[in-house]
Amino acid sequence: MKTVFACLALLGCAILSGSARDPVTRARTPVHIPDLPGYVTLKCDFHTHTVFSDGLVWPTVRAEEAWREGLDALAITDHLEYLPHKADLGTNHNRAHDLARTNANDLDLLLVRGSEITRKMPPGHLNAIFLTNSTLLAVSNWQDSVQAAVGQGAFVFWNHPGWEAQITNNRVLWYPEHTALLEQGQLHGIEVVNSRDYYPEAHRWAIEHKLALFANSDIHNPLNLDYHVHNGDHRPMTLVFARKRTPESLREALFARRTAAYSGSRLVGDEAFLHPLFTQSIQIKNARFPLKGRQRVFVQILNNSDIPYELERAGELDTVTFPKELTLAPGKYVLLEVKGKGTKTKGKKSLALPYKVANLLIAPETPLAITLDLEVTFTP
Amino acid sequence: MKTVFACLALLGCAILSGSARDPVTRARTPVHIPDLPGYVTLKCDFHTHTVFSDGLVWPTVRAEEAWREGLDALAITDHLEYLPHKADLGTNHNRAHDLARTNANDLDLLLVRGSEITRKMPPGHLNAIFLTNSTLLAVSNWQDSVQAAVGQGAFVFWNHPGWEAQITNNRVLWYPEHTALLEQGQLHGIEVVNSRDYYPEAHRWAIEHKLALFANSDIHNPLNLDYHVHNGDHRPMTLVFARKRTPESLREALFARRTAAYSGSRLVGDEAFLHPLFTQSIQIKNARFPLKGRQRVFVQILNNSDIPYELERAGELDTVTFPKELTLAPGKYVLLEVKGKGTKTKGKKSLALPYKVANLLIAPETPLAITLDLEVTFTP
Amino acid sequence: MKTVFACLALLGCAILSGSARDPVTRARTPVHIPDLPGYVTLKCDFHTHTVFSDGLVWPTVRAEEAWREGLDALAITDHLEYLPHKADLGTNHNRAHDLARTNANDLDLLLVRGSEITRKMPPGHLNAIFLTNSTLLAVSNWQDSVQAAVGQGAFVFWNHPGWEAQITNNRVLWYPEHTALLEQGQLHGIEVVNSRDYYPEAHRWAIEHKLALFANSDIHNPLNLDYHVHNGDHRPMTLVFARKRTPESLREALFARRTAAYSGSRLVGDEAFLHPLFTQSIQIKNARFPLKGRQRVFVQILNNSDIPYELERAGELDTVTFPKELTLAPGKYVLLEVKGKGTKTKGKKSLALPYKVANLLIAPETPLAITLDLEVTFTP
Amino acid sequence: MKTVFACLALLGCAILSGSARDPVTRARTPVHIPDLPGYVTLKCDFHTHTVFSDGLVWPTVRAEEAWREGLDALAITDHLEYLPHKADLGTNHNRAHDLARTNANDLDLLLVRGSEITRKMPPGHLNAIFLTNSTLLAVSNWQDSVQAAVGQGAFVFWNHPGWEAQITNNRVLWYPEHTALLEQGQLHGIEVVNSRDYYPEAHRWAIEHKLALFANSDIHNPLNLDYHVHNGDHRPMTLVFARKRTPESLREALFARRTAAYSGSRLVGDEAFLHPLFTQSIQIKNARFPLKGRQRVFVQILNNSDIPYELERAGELDTVTFPKELTLAPGKYVLLEVKGKGTKTKGKKSLALPYKVANLLIAPETPLAITLDLEVTFTP
Repeated sequence: MKTVFACLALLGCAILSGSARDPVTRARTPVHIPDLPGYVTLKCDFHTHTVFSDGLVWPTVRAEEAWREGLDALAITDHLEYLPHKADLGTNHNRAHDLARTNANDLDLLLVRGSEITRKMPPGHLNAIFLTNSTLLAVSNWQDSVQAAVGQGAFVFWNHPGWEAQITNNRVLWYPEHTALLEQGQLHGIEVVNSRDYYPEAHRWAIEHKLALFANSDIHNPLNLDYHVHNGDHRPMTLVFARKRTPESLREALFARRTAAYSGSRLVGDEAFLHPLFTQSIQIKNARFPLKGRQRVFVQILNNSDIPYELERAGELDTVTFPKELTLAPGKYVLLEVKGKGTKTKGKKSLALPYKVANLLIAPETPLAITLDLEVTFTP
Repeated sequence: MKTVFACLALLGCAILSGSARDPVTRARTPVHIPDLPGYVTLKCDFHTHTVFSDGLVWPTVRAEEAWREGLDALAITDHLEYLPHKADLGTNHNRAHDLARTNANDLDLLLVRGSEITRKMPPGHLNAIFLTNSTLLAVSNWQDSVQAAVGQGAFVFWNHPGWEAQITNNRVLWYPEHTALLEQGQLHGIEVVNSRDYYPEAHRWAIEHKLALFANSDIHNPLNLDYHVHNGDHRPMTLVFARKRTPESLREALFARRTAAYSGSRLVGDEAFLHPLFTQSIQIKNARFPLKGRQRVFVQILNNSDIPYELERAGELDTVTFPKELTLAPGKYVLLEVKGKGTKTKGKKSLALPYKVANLLIAPETPLAITLDLEVTFTP
Repeated sequence: MKTVFACLALLGCAILSGSARDPVTRARTPVHIPDLPGYVTLKCDFHTHTVFSDGLVWPTVRAEEAWREGLDALAITDHLEYLPHKADLGTNHNRAHDLARTNANDLDLLLVRGSEITRKMPPGHLNAIFLTNSTLLAVSNWQDSVQAAVGQGAFVFWNHPGWEAQITNNRVLWYPEHTALLEQGQLHGIEVVNSRDYYPEAHRWAIEHKLALFANSDIHNPLNLDYHVHNGDHRPMTLVFARKRTPESLREALFARRTAAYSGSRLVGDEAFLHPLFTQSIQIKNARFPLKGRQRVFVQILNNSDIPYELERAGELDTVTFPKELTLAPGKYVLLEVKGKGTKTKGKKSLALPYKVANLLIAPETPLAITLDLEVTFTP
Repeated sequence: MKTVFACLALLGCAILSGSARDPVTRARTPVHIPDLPGYVTLKCDFHTHTVFSDGLVWPTVRAEEAWREGLDALAITDHLEYLPHKADLGTNHNRAHDLARTNANDLDLLLVRGSEITRKMPPGHLNAIFLTNSTLLAVSNWQDSVQAAVGQGAFVFWNHPGWEAQITNNRVLWYPEHTALLEQGQLHGIEVVNSRDYYPEAHRWAIEHKLALFANSDIHNPLNLDYHVHNGDHRPMTLVFARKRTPESLREALFARRTAAYSGSRLVGDEAFLHPLFTQSIQIKNARFPLKGRQRVFVQILNNSDIPYELERAGELDTVTFPKELTLAPGKYVLLEVKGKGTKTKGKKSLALPYKVANLLIAPETPLAITLDLEVTFTP
């Protein structure tokens, strides 16, 4: 009854939407991840499904969900080959995108046309985005399909390389077919995260082959059936560091591989992006202070992002002790307890407390190294 | 990727569902509302939409949502006349129900075939449920449509009589057409609650005309976009007091008008149902105790239901004081502070503390009256 | 075991604190309320109790709670006259403040020395803050007690004037004693909110007599037993618009009565503060847009504060329609649907959409008036 | 202001408690853990502190918190030797218990007198509970202190044996002093969990030396500062399987070592208790069903407890497949997908699906083995 009906010729033209103050406000929750110098951080999901393939929602719902969950850009990427609702909905591969367009425009979302080329391994499933016409990809030979995408200027990435249904003997494999795609300039990115799964092997390949990293939801259900978004369980997202919030900038940034993969509390990407992202996130309230003898000082650190940085001490200092572990809780101040070692040090010193951020991975099993920088004036 | 694919002839037959332990368990949350003596309390929603009219989810989603939210019975009631997705999905009025059937069976849900006869006022919108063939209702004259429903043994109720789009000068009106339906035995129930709106006028008519009371969601969106179910914001539901959990018993109970309307913290229905429902919900842990002079005793009351009973004192007693207001929090024990008035009363007395339950309405603006029964042994 | 023990002579000196990564991080949650031009908004509670009168926590807990809940300033104001723990803790009226001092310093809290002069009505209970020595107030005549406070430069305010235990025939009364205090310059403020209660009468007096407005917790329990702070149920707080975050500025601002009272979703204060506070809180993302005929545009409004502004339309415009009600959810974007009326208007127009903010009170029953300002370029 | 004042001679006798309907109801949340046949499961915390040693709350708060968090029994066990508030509160070792007594009685809590004998290692910290007079334990020699406790019929257990402040080279050690205590019948239990830490070594010793297992909070702060109890982060508790809910039964059960240690999602105890506790917790809704060929059936399992049982498949069956992992979410139904293997099996068969419960430990690294029992009627 809340649907805003258009005028119904059959019924007369008086049906309007309701207007009571609803306890569940239709609202967009911003994702707090800082911009990097020179770039805006766009939050994106480039892999979603609707009733037009094997998904379970009408295309407009994907735009609504994306808006509410703070995304900037979205691609609907229904399967070209797997169409279980075909009997009801036919095979128009452009239709889902076209239906979501008005809603996306109203909500100021960047909606990117996409399709999922859905084959057995190799090459497995490939997403093509920034298409102009999905129908041209619906051909029997998968190489022709990729060719048709690239011919439209599309960006192509490999989906869920570690999907257990497509791996052999529990091993994720890179096939000659992938090498071929790469060499022909037809493979530009790879999902290192699909839904809740992270694939270290894909992460390695991304680094080795200079592929853009992706974290996508691959959502089929209504989003809230799979993610408890009201309770902080955010959908996976691909962060894109773009010059502007436009489709052109988004595309340029993807081809320039300026992305990171954000899923749960894990953030995966190049040090060149993750390091400034971390430093832009935090703010040390009292970084300068005097310290006498074995005095204890509580440094207050504010984390302005939504990411809970899990710090682990990565070295010692001669002059002070500091915590072995510290979680910088999202949106909060936490206390870093610094204690003098009672040395003879005297005067103003710059201290760089060495930490690793356990949940920020610049390569598989390789956490980002950072320092917390203080300026301490010592009195023995 | 979590969708359980059937075998895909095109791709080979190796695609399986994922298996990682997911933080969001697919689970059913029971609705805690007690059974009444001789009956089981079935939680039902008889008004929902899918992509097959103006809803936004595939029919199976309605079954999944109903199972997760603890419902026992569900009707998909797509509009017969308002079909904005007709260009994509055609006009098969039975299709949504048929598609949801397997899922409903797997999940042990009672799925009832329904349709919404969608006309301007009068008669407004009418739901017909327990249909055998929705197609027969798609005729131009609405009376013929109702006739076709009743001819199938259907139960017919009036939807959202207070919908602002169909009311005149801010007044909810009962038309001669409704009297006619009633006299012909073609109107059996009425929504006193639709989504978040309660209509006192409809409540009055239900009592006057002996219509079964309904609270339905009329949901078009994915449920979780409109209700924060993970945070206790439950969907509206019609409680049906049935002899057994079967379609036949459900139907019998509806025609016998053994229902109540449950929405937010409000429960609307006959005293004959609400009174035992309240008493079956609560348990007084220490109802018998000695009391000396002006002593204070804390009686612990457990509310086993999900409904927060909001008690308001409805009288005084000579011997003890007791709280003016008390909320019996769902699933919890609360304290009822009873204090002696220091009278000369002596020996064992049965006390009936008079209260009204502000959120249980047996008629518009008429809360249910109850007593909290104690047995106190007085010493002056 | 998590307590950081100092060296225990009796036991040897090996006892240290634990170090495991705890799921409950010790953290400060900032209160998001914007600064006003030229001022910083300090969040304060000037009425709290500890075990040193009838409270139930050690004084350091009040500092810890205040830090965690985002306060800038705190006063512990134990009763001078009501000391139910006297047998165990004696009657040192300065002790609670002195014990909390180190913790407050470590956490960078402004801790203000205070006491509650606790008498029957009139004058009821009075808080004196910015004391130097509470002991001097412990005298039998209440006027002498106030005199002793004022002699120390204290700021004096009337606590919970509407407390039901101290009102007569359900009426809150202003006594000649209050007039006397006022005329002698010994009454500077008044609680318009105490714990969860708002007193409209006190609000009226505050305006009439130019008293600073206060909202204080008057907390006796551990804070979290009375407020579900992890679930958004914030403690009441007095907002002070100070030039700097120092004790001197805080005191200056109080005497200059630059305060507002914040409790639940209600904010009470002068228009001079509430109006800029509102405008600094919100950000209209797309305030400029073209509009053709009866087109519909969704304006996105971000509320950067923690306060859910409840807008109610306070007028109409000739050119466009806009919502009757809109809640600007805290920290979120919501949609303001603007629709052309299809008039012949042409060209760029500044539109000021008139609203009242129902939960911002500049006087009893007088909501703040604001406008949402757009620049629309019309095409017929 | 919500404190219920007694009559204050100084002020007159009119001060009463407030009465507004408070959004935060004072309520007890039951802990749902089933009783075992012949026993009631008492939820207990035998290690807590107050201001009378190094804790930070008044003793009555411990009773209030215990009642709200669903405990049946509580011991306040302030240190005998470590008294940082001595200057304010003196050294009456019985005082905390005595002050909490009225509140505990009002709330129907079993309050057990206790003290913590607080020494360096060996023997470390020992709790003595079921004391009659704590003062007699305040002697310089720790053996004399234990003797004084045992002489009162006390139950003595070793606290946090794995506390990092009292371990050597990262190893938890059993000293000759512990053997001596054991041989003299003066050591009856051991904490395998203290606050959030589980000590596998202590678990091994408990089994080897037939000591009762404990999980205690050792809480010093207000409980809610360390546990987010409103969000499901429960305090650790010792489950005691007693014949009745009386102090005598509680004591008998402890000496008979009928306990288990419950912390987070982990439950530690003997198979003799954990096995029936699991089976009493769950209910298989549709355990009997027909199965044809490779048909798939969804068995619904309800977990009536608060413990999320984490099942891991521990074997295979010839006739059906079933999930590798399944979390039985607390208070919910989950789906166990059973699929026929298409064998020639025919007729009614009892199937016992073998699982381990990963979070129920009957010994270190030894999860409880259980079966899910079905009765399947096969048709090929």
